[in-house]
Amino acid sequence: MTVNNAMTADFLRSAYGGESAAHMRYLIWADVAEAEKMPNIGRLFRAIAYAEYAHADNHFRVLKDQVGDYTVASGAVFGVGKTVDNLQGAINGELHEVEQMYPVYLETARYQNEKGAEKAFHYALEAEKIHAKMFQDAQNMAKQGKDMDIGTIYVCPICGHTVADHLPDQCPICGAKKDLYKDFPA
Amino acid sequence: MTVNNAMTADFLRSAYGGESAAHMRYLIWADVAEAEKMPNIGRLFRAIAYAEYAHADNHFRVLKDQVGDYTVASGAVFGVGKTVDNLQGAINGELHEVEQMYPVYLETARYQNEKGAEKAFHYALEAEKIHAKMFQDAQNMAKQGKDMDIGTIYVCPICGHTVADHLPDQCPICGAKKDLYKDFPA
Ligand SMILES: [Fe+2]
Ligand SMILES: [Fe+2]
Ligand SMILES: [Fe+2]
Ligand SMILES: [Fe+2]
Ligand SMILES: [Fe+2]
Ligand SMILES: [Fe+2]
Repeated sequence: MTVNNAMTADFLRSAYGGESAAHMRYLIWADVAEAEKMPNIGRLFRAIAYAEYAHADNHFRVLKDQVGDYTVASGAVFGVGKTVDNLQGAINGELHEVEQMYPVYLETARYQNEKGAEKAFHYALEAEKIHAKMFQDAQNMAKQGKDMDIGTIYVCPICGHTVADHLPDQCPICGAKKDLYKDFPA
Repeated sequence: MTVNNAMTADFLRSAYGGESAAHMRYLIWADVAEAEKMPNIGRLFRAIAYAEYAHADNHFRVLKDQVGDYTVASGAVFGVGKTVDNLQGAINGELHEVEQMYPVYLETARYQNEKGAEKAFHYALEAEKIHAKMFQDAQNMAKQGKDMDIGTIYVCPICGHTVADHLPDQCPICGAKKDLYKDFPA
């Protein structure tokens, strides 16, 4: 996989920056949730951080031949507050990716016939839809001062598909076999 | 710790983006080194990725009250090649931080009397000097087609100080006690 068009390459770099920053802030917000005695929400942050790592890894590898130093502009959410507020930041970030960023990046990759980027953006878009929903579920509990009630969380290392409790036989986004998933046990 | 001045806050966000991206590409380049049967160089990438996480964490927490969505411009190195080439990318990135980026950010934090940012930038600057040297040592071996010959690598989770083989009684950068270090054993 590689990329030939400058606009798609720019979007891959921007998405790489955004996924890297998201990975990092979810690890920080996991620490906060754990300190607030919400270990399951902490674990959700860690599992989804791993999914963002898979997205960043995909984008970076499509860019493998674009060797060099770049200044990259990326959207990123900031702030360290209570978990209920950090979850609002997480929801905002995921919804921006789902409603604005990845649909435009995906459309561009299709328009420029960039197959590697199209796959990487498609995987991320589908996974972020699930992340937005899971963070909303987490926030609904946190608003009541409660932790989430979830078992093992599983993440597909190929596409970042994230699912709790019941692992499908194969990944509904990328088709990977179930034994490839990384698990985050309770 | 917090921040009051817009320029220092911008530099903290930019440094957070750069550290997050560095963390991520070192994990990817670790995979490449391991696939090339250079497990010690792979382990060096993983240890230094952890140090970059510490830097990102410090910058993000100084910004804790700057809640919201930002577009962040950060320097980042791209490319996936052979380990000897990936190490050149790593050296370039670290030297840019050591010679250009962090000295200017640190000078700005001092000029604007931003104590939290000053500490975060100082920690990163001192650790990056060591990273540049370690990556150069790694590349000298990789150029001969050899892996590094190093034992356990230790990283201070407070400041990112990175050292191989012999752990000091306390961190020479931040003063943390030796039992706080995270180890990456051979
Ligand atoms: Fe993502
Ligand atoms: Fe996500
Ligand atoms: Fe998948
Ligand atoms: Fe760093
Ligand atoms: Fe570094
Ligand atoms: Fe330290």
